[in-house]
Amino acid sequence: MRVAIDAMGGDFAPDEIVKGAIQAAKDYSEINLEIVLVGEKDKIVRALEQHGGKDLNIAVHHASEVIEMNEHPGVAIRKKKDASVVVATRLVAERVCDVVISAGSTGAAVAAALFILGRIPGIERPAIATPIPNLIGTTTVLLDSGANVDSKPKHLVQGAIMGSIYAEYVLNIPNPRVGLLNIGEEETKGNEQVLATYPLLKQLHTINFVGNVEGRDIPTGTVNVVVCDGFVGNIVLKVGEGLASMIMQLVKESIKASGFFTKIASMLVIPALKGLMKKLDDAEYGGAPLLGVKGGFIICHGSSKAKAVKNAIRVAYEFTEQKVVEHIRENIEEEEDIIIERE
Amino acid sequence: MRVAIDAMGGDFAPDEIVKGAIQAAKDYSEINLEIVLVGEKDKIVRALEQHGGKDLNIAVHHASEVIEMNEHPGVAIRKKKDASVVVATRLVAERVCDVVISAGSTGAAVAAALFILGRIPGIERPAIATPIPNLIGTTTVLLDSGANVDSKPKHLVQGAIMGSIYAEYVLNIPNPRVGLLNIGEEETKGNEQVLATYPLLKQLHTINFVGNVEGRDIPTGTVNVVVCDGFVGNIVLKVGEGLASMIMQLVKESIKASGFFTKIASMLVIPALKGLMKKLDDAEYGGAPLLGVKGGFIICHGSSKAKAVKNAIRVAYEFTEQKVVEHIRENIEEEEDIIIERE
Repeated sequence: MRVAIDAMGGDFAPDEIVKGAIQAAKDYSEINLEIVLVGEKDKIVRALEQHGGKDLNIAVHHASEVIEMNEHPGVAIRKKKDASVVVATRLVAERVCDVVISAGSTGAAVAAALFILGRIPGIERPAIATPIPNLIGTTTVLLDSGANVDSKPKHLVQGAIMGSIYAEYVLNIPNPRVGLLNIGEEETKGNEQVLATYPLLKQLHTINFVGNVEGRDIPTGTVNVVVCDGFVGNIVLKVGEGLASMIMQLVKESIKASGFFTKIASMLVIPALKGLMKKLDDAEYGGAPLLGVKGGFIICHGSSKAKAVKNAIRVAYEFTEQKVVEHIRENIEEEEDIIIERE
Repeated sequence: MRVAIDAMGGDFAPDEIVKGAIQAAKDYSEINLEIVLVGEKDKIVRALEQHGGKDLNIAVHHASEVIEMNEHPGVAIRKKKDASVVVATRLVAERVCDVVISAGSTGAAVAAALFILGRIPGIERPAIATPIPNLIGTTTVLLDSGANVDSKPKHLVQGAIMGSIYAEYVLNIPNPRVGLLNIGEEETKGNEQVLATYPLLKQLHTINFVGNVEGRDIPTGTVNVVVCDGFVGNIVLKVGEGLASMIMQLVKESIKASGFFTKIASMLVIPALKGLMKKLDDAEYGGAPLLGVKGGFIICHGSSKAKAVKNAIRVAYEFTEQKVVEHIRENIEEEEDIIIERE
């Protein structure tokens, strides 16, 4: 597998991106992995030397520009033809690489994927599928977690089909349970968007739709795939991140404040807390695939460090190996009657 | 203050409701509090006797019917004229009581408030304002947290004005910071609903609008009031509840699993955990007011136990004392130009 990595995208680029690539090259030696780091050659080569990656199987592909976080995605993609994310995506479009990874602007990543890779026939809106750890120790896939807002019912239906494939082939969940995120379990609950989506989901035959789910079902893991609009999904994700880090901080403060026994308590509890933090750490999950475009595209959190990048490379590998794009193409074709609006 | 409590609403009614009333009558003896429990007289009297509330200043007002959780709110309110929540709300409409508290069906509570109390002039959609504990130790008000879906921009603007008043007068936050829940901070981000709401909020002069906020700003307490559509607000709230209880369970399990030192660790950490749980416990916050109707209406979680009911009575007291309804009426009048659509 050949993976193109946008070495200039993210809060800690290029150093942490390069370090993640080095770790992956070392740790995943059993797979036939070729890494191509895309971005400013001098900076990348220097980082490779500095972090001991000079003699590994890591190629560097020069790109002279970088898209900043505050740029308008569509405009930036068209204007900066030599931006790292654009060049990396082009490597996949031209079949030089199999999959691209970026921790840069999510908007720019989605725009690059749409314009350069293009959509799978039948998919109007690609969706970001974010894996979330849940209470029962498995993973819940939330999609769309921010690629689109004001989605139409058929877009949510397309998301459901794609999310189910991702859960089945990449997360190894047979016959994944798919739920529609709503404010009640009854079919008659919700806003116009979900009320119109529910009957369409019921008609699908390639997914295991179990009905509406509520916010609490995401952390409890009642279902494997949670479908929602990108506006809702993005807010849910950020509430979760904020709350998880708030609670961890409160636990630590409580332990500190417990006075006399502080040191003993810390010694005993810190290993337990570390285990917990590992469970909740999104770096463990690497990246979230953008589903629905003609090629692999893994989007990483802007704050990704080496570990997240390394794990994203593993996700990229699974995504490619399991032929997710082909499965989406097949199932979307099979469900054509339901997802294509006749007006 | 006279408070009418729907004694039949909630998962643990009437016992926990009655126990909460008893605790309030005992603990809040410094305020001039008269409690009226509304519902099946026999059951309530029996509960009062059983829990030692016979000789307290608690009245019982008979109501023969109960609205169940699965009933259609609007239909149930019209059909069951002698339902506990209907009768309790009528006591406020007739000025026998100042405020009503219910832990029953939220839909039925909202319907009862709308049909029986009516809306404050200028308010088209009342909103539920839920207080949420945050990292900096204050409270963030989230509204609407489930009364309305598919809100129009002006409904969100009305919510912003009402939430600001609630934060200022009941939570004692001077000049509360109000944010619009969105998927990015920039004015150009978001779905159609929030994009159209932002410029309206900027024009208001009775609130301190600070711009867009993201999901993570709710637990971190960046702003005091977070405005959103009820579909989003309800999901955010339930994700938060689910995640908080999941993390607490994981912490407990981690400690249990830490083996040899289990008992010592538990002894040391459990007090710290209890402090934390108290902070996150929504029972501490009592209830969420329904803002925008002509009278006080406090909605409690369906799973409310005595402590939550007792605290809801305190919220009801503050709400009444601080004349929240009058302040809303005044400020809505002052902002008339912005919130009333001219088409």
